[in-house]
Amino acid sequence: MSERAYNFSAGPAILPEPVLKQAQKDIWNIFDSGMGVLELSHRGPQFDRILAEAEADCREVGNIPDNYRVLFLQGGATLQTAMIPMSFLPAGETADYFDTGKWASDAIKEAKKFGTVHVAGTTKELKYKRLPTEAETKFSPDAAYCFFVSNNTIYGTQWHNLPKSRAPIVCDMSSDFFCRPHDFTKYAMVYASAQKNIGPSGQAIAVISDEFLANAPEGKLATMLDYKVMAAQESRPNTPNTFAIYLMGQCFKWIKNFGGLRAIEEYNKEKAKIVYDYLDNSKFFIPHAEKQDRSLMNITFKCAKPELDEVFIDQAENAGLKTIAGHRSIGGMRASIYNAFPIEGCRALVKFMKDFESKHG
Amino acid sequence: MSERAYNFSAGPAILPEPVLKQAQKDIWNIFDSGMGVLELSHRGPQFDRILAEAEADCREVGNIPDNYRVLFLQGGATLQTAMIPMSFLPAGETADYFDTGKWASDAIKEAKKFGTVHVAGTTKELKYKRLPTEAETKFSPDAAYCFFVSNNTIYGTQWHNLPKSRAPIVCDMSSDFFCRPHDFTKYAMVYASAQKNIGPSGQAIAVISDEFLANAPEGKLATMLDYKVMAAQESRPNTPNTFAIYLMGQCFKWIKNFGGLRAIEEYNKEKAKIVYDYLDNSKFFIPHAEKQDRSLMNITFKCAKPELDEVFIDQAENAGLKTIAGHRSIGGMRASIYNAFPIEGCRALVKFMKDFESKHG
Repeated sequence: MSERAYNFSAGPAILPEPVLKQAQKDIWNIFDSGMGVLELSHRGPQFDRILAEAEADCREVGNIPDNYRVLFLQGGATLQTAMIPMSFLPAGETADYFDTGKWASDAIKEAKKFGTVHVAGTTKELKYKRLPTEAETKFSPDAAYCFFVSNNTIYGTQWHNLPKSRAPIVCDMSSDFFCRPHDFTKYAMVYASAQKNIGPSGQAIAVISDEFLANAPEGKLATMLDYKVMAAQESRPNTPNTFAIYLMGQCFKWIKNFGGLRAIEEYNKEKAKIVYDYLDNSKFFIPHAEKQDRSLMNITFKCAKPELDEVFIDQAENAGLKTIAGHRSIGGMRASIYNAFPIEGCRALVKFMKDFESKHG
Repeated sequence: MSERAYNFSAGPAILPEPVLKQAQKDIWNIFDSGMGVLELSHRGPQFDRILAEAEADCREVGNIPDNYRVLFLQGGATLQTAMIPMSFLPAGETADYFDTGKWASDAIKEAKKFGTVHVAGTTKELKYKRLPTEAETKFSPDAAYCFFVSNNTIYGTQWHNLPKSRAPIVCDMSSDFFCRPHDFTKYAMVYASAQKNIGPSGQAIAVISDEFLANAPEGKLATMLDYKVMAAQESRPNTPNTFAIYLMGQCFKWIKNFGGLRAIEEYNKEKAKIVYDYLDNSKFFIPHAEKQDRSLMNITFKCAKPELDEVFIDQAENAGLKTIAGHRSIGGMRASIYNAFPIEGCRALVKFMKDFESKHG
């Protein structure tokens, strides 16, 4: 096999090669300081620079308004699913949640530990192959917030328009953050785990409006669960995950060099089209997600003959198309093609699919 | 300056050079998989191996009994200071805490959000320059647990014997975990952030006895705050911090290659002795910690003439002795010489101190 494979992992996922090469250097000695990036005091001048640049580049890439805080948080997306209701769902109020897949339904379970949840729409009975339509949606009258997961990795669906709630919108953007431009002014809060488009696992980023943040309680929560403390202390009341922040900063710089989110979006569309076009013209493979809601990030499909799925996955693995098995809950295949995934890998996948079809069709 | 400086950072701190060199390779392509360590699915065979080896090596190095769980947890040590009272301090009960410095007093503040705390001993009025004596200690009659911080980075003190509580002992071992052998059977729970002796920041390890773990509540806490969920799902109910676990695993292997914790202890004693011997014979420098409680990991001192501290720090920095400033709360100097810090650096520090003394003495 070649030195680097085409890695279709749904996350932790492939990272940009220039970022990896820079990290290889900086692990040994960053900024010619004689210290590696993992070894820097989180209060020293080198890390001050890393943190400041990461936030500035994030704001620039995302066109994030000044009245939004950018927070670097530990615990991944799962901790966010608890922190949000702990902070923003007071007793006596209700939050609207869309149930569009495993991560959404896990978020619902988590929120129910802390408050009242109303499910505004679900497509569970359809195996989440599409999103709820407006006709299928019912908001509660006065929700504290409306929560949705913008991209559902397991099923390969993605919201291409925001839900039309009048409540503050809270979005888990873990698997499509910075896959295209976002209008942050439409959200009260967005969060994302880093390990898809912008870094390593074990880290989340949150973008919160000052107005929404003001609703959080004061001084009651554990320090690490307190958005206000995190905002006031610029993501470091304790020692932050310095390496994750460094690596996210490198990914933001890579996106800038790529031409920004508009260019990334074009590239992601081009990549996805290569695979979807083939799928749409094949009777051998069956896509899981319905066309109108399908994801730019995760392409889910099966062989029409179910017994061939495992054969496909094994042979793909041997051909250097790695980690293409679908999530255990729905099986089949999943090609995750995040920002850093190269277009050549999409072409290689389609070529492999064609060959496989002609052999087994 | 030479390629790598002597880095006295209190944490994130210097890592073993063989670990950094291995990480440089594995970031690009690990196990010849064609994927970098940051890019591996946390459910794939490569990461299964990394996690299994990290735990096995940790158990072997630490001689951790089978009836103790080893958990890899996100959020650093600070989150532990909340999770412990949330899990193990039920309403109506009291926990004993020793106040031996900033991290201990922060843990007390955090615990008070969730339950009743009794301060069993404090040396706050002495600027924490030593630990409370037995005569100064008063335990509560029936504590849920007794909490202490085994090494106080800021002041340079370290417990060389356990507090004599009859309650289950819970220890924050963040800054001296694996600096020497530990008898885990004497503890109900030990936790440590990784960024001193065993890895990068943003990650903690916990070693908990099954008996103590059984006291934690069931199904009430947020998933990420639930030790029972973490234990049942082997530290990955969600995507763990895969890189931190990898790097901790590499540090455990490095300790094994070094000859284990007994050899590490000898090395750490030898390193500390070089600096303490000089300090004990100098009137120019004044050590902060009292002899009987001083730390193998963090050596704190000042110049007898306070105006020279800043000069010392600046000139040391220029001489490649980096990050030697004391914590802002007590000032002066702090030489953190964790496991990976080389003995040559201690010699270089003493040589620098001698030169400085002869110039300014």
